Amino acid sequence: MTRPIYLDHSATTRVAPEVVAAMEPYMGDRFGNPSSLHALGREARAAVEHSRETIAMHLGANTKEIVFTAGATEANNLALIGAAFASEERRHIITTAIEHHAVLHTAQWLQSQGFPVTVLDVDAAGRVDVDAVRQALREDTLLVSIMAGNNEIGTLQPIQEIGTMCRERGVLFHTDAVQAFGKVPLPMDSVDLLSVSAHKLHGPKGVGFLYVRRGVKLVPLLHGGGHEGGRRSGTENVPSIVGLGAATEIAFSEMEKLATRLRGFRARLIEGVAGIPGTRLNGHPTESLPHIANFSFEAIEGEGLVLKLDELGVAVSTGSACSSPDLEPSHVLRAIGVPMSTIHGSLRVSTGRGTTPEEIEAFLEHLPGAVEALRAFSPFKVGDRRVH
Amino acid sequence: MTRPIYLDHSATTRVAPEVVAAMEPYMGDRFGNPSSLHALGREARAAVEHSRETIAMHLGANTKEIVFTAGATEANNLALIGAAFASEERRHIITTAIEHHAVLHTAQWLQSQGFPVTVLDVDAAGRVDVDAVRQALREDTLLVSIMAGNNEIGTLQPIQEIGTMCRERGVLFHTDAVQAFGKVPLPMDSVDLLSVSAHKLHGPKGVGFLYVRRGVKLVPLLHGGGHEGGRRSGTENVPSIVGLGAATEIAFSEMEKLATRLRGFRARLIEGVAGIPGTRLNGHPTESLPHIANFSFEAIEGEGLVLKLDELGVAVSTGSACSSPDLEPSHVLRAIGVPMSTIHGSLRVSTGRGTTPEEIEAFLEHLPGAVEALRAFSPFKVGDRRVH
Repeated sequence: MTRPIYLDHSATTRVAPEVVAAMEPYMGDRFGNPSSLHALGREARAAVEHSRETIAMHLGANTKEIVFTAGATEANNLALIGAAFASEERRHIITTAIEHHAVLHTAQWLQSQGFPVTVLDVDAAGRVDVDAVRQALREDTLLVSIMAGNNEIGTLQPIQEIGTMCRERGVLFHTDAVQAFGKVPLPMDSVDLLSVSAHKLHGPKGVGFLYVRRGVKLVPLLHGGGHEGGRRSGTENVPSIVGLGAATEIAFSEMEKLATRLRGFRARLIEGVAGIPGTRLNGHPTESLPHIANFSFEAIEGEGLVLKLDELGVAVSTGSACSSPDLEPSHVLRAIGVPMSTIHGSLRVSTGRGTTPEEIEAFLEHLPGAVEALRAFSPFKVGDRRVH
Repeated sequence: MTRPIYLDHSATTRVAPEVVAAMEPYMGDRFGNPSSLHALGREARAAVEHSRETIAMHLGANTKEIVFTAGATEANNLALIGAAFASEERRHIITTAIEHHAVLHTAQWLQSQGFPVTVLDVDAAGRVDVDAVRQALREDTLLVSIMAGNNEIGTLQPIQEIGTMCRERGVLFHTDAVQAFGKVPLPMDSVDLLSVSAHKLHGPKGVGFLYVRRGVKLVPLLHGGGHEGGRRSGTENVPSIVGLGAATEIAFSEMEKLATRLRGFRARLIEGVAGIPGTRLNGHPTESLPHIANFSFEAIEGEGLVLKLDELGVAVSTGSACSSPDLEPSHVLRAIGVPMSTIHGSLRVSTGRGTTPEEIEAFLEHLPGAVEALRAFSPFKVGDRRVH
């Protein structure tokens, strides 16, 4: 298979060669279990703790505040379920309509277990209104969970203001920072719980962490040997934790430079796509993650466009990879009010560390023809307002 | 660090070079997200499903019955919590006093959530009595969870009889097969739920699976994108799932031959240790996993012996790696009635694929001197019945 032009970095990323190199010894000679007393075990323990220190340092956190998990889905579940089951009196949870399903479906499950949930709307650009959060806060609100930056449309949320407001009311504030961590600075002072995944960051799949501010009580999701300070049992995934540390190190060392570069790509993508008739940008034009641009195309199906571009050697997506197999329109695009005439025709373009200007131009050269080809076979027309 | 004589395979194992080789492409060029529609995504999906087919084939299971998890702790938690929360009327759970903490602590947590739990005793060799299980079954029993082979003392359980009896009563039967999978044949016909971890099997850490018999309902532990047929959300850990498949392939291709070899090592270890005064074998002499032998030494601390042997280049453990850091006596040794005079002086020796006869002999040469050296400094004497 020829290596495609990969513009789907929000779905997953290639593990950086430096990260693979850091991991490999822990699958080979350094394969010990960190709980073992002998030298191989102590060496593995040291590697896990070194990774924890790297992450804590970049976040300005204490090492005890980092709980390694099998990824962000687990981190999000641990944040919400763990806080809910640990809460003695407060039971109310606030979240938004555009959260990742790992937050939204977890909140829905908690609702079925007797925890009332308020799901806030967002505006047409995908922004949550700070005042709407304030008005939703109740005496018995235990947790507000609002993502830092959206995984489909890129919109950044005012998490600093929201987190500060929560802190003043004694309400826990959780943010899903899967797409934001290592891409934009995070207001850690305002956050109690923060979820991160390695594989969005050129780290390995199957590992992530939950930042848990000192003093925040969680009931563990996984019971057992009492690893991670009793908050997450299960033998530590040493090579992957080492990889997450290495990926964090790389991401933070180049964050500003990379963000500037990716913002440039985003601006060029917006400009380039605007030249095609019957398109719109979904999400906020500027208050956005640097690497995500989401567009709608009238009179075509996003899946068709993804497959057409795939034939041309370009890998993109219609939205969240997690929901790609179902054909339901994106809950994020519905929440921002994308008209039914274009909601099925969405395309998420997400750039990354390896993206080149040449790749962006090649994509923009392929795109109009691909769109045109699909529209030629479509029963709908540009400007058509019928629902398809 | 010189490579030690590694006799701690029950704690974890080196990832086999063939397994690493199988994984590497999926951290490199084949890094796609299996939920992505494009070629990179489809290639990752194919790899995950190929691994699922390999595992299902060796278990005589259907591919839909294999749910990948982040390891056996998660699989055990999913089995118990998932079945408990999915149960409409039955609420009673039966387990044993010698389960891994991932089962025992999960059962205890469920008890705190209103699910009554019966914890069965075992005999002096660590065997569960089938009649005791029968007598413990109640009208409202939903699940029996009994491990296939114990991780500290190696004792095998009569899971076929117990599972069959459960089936007749409409009770789910779960077995933690972490130490047994790939080592001894498993009576899949009698099992509804079965937990496996890759890293005990020369596969990577951070991945495992739960076998879920068709028709068994589970509430997911991790809510989100609905992966694994809605039973376990979270981006599939492609390289590790591929590694688990490769490790399974290797384990099943050599199972009988390896088991015979490891049984020979075990017999030699038992014979060799018996020559040291003040020792006992913990666990069943013959109804045992082939790779685990557990001994008690009077008048010494197991931790001291592990560290002494570590200095001599031999890696062993006092028992479960998961509990090594705490100094509580092993719950397994307490359950089989090891006297308090020797319960702190336990040593688990666990062999594996790479173990050689020379390593066994080297260990047996080092051991008497190490025991003697520690006893020389001990305030206790062999034959002493005082509790220490």
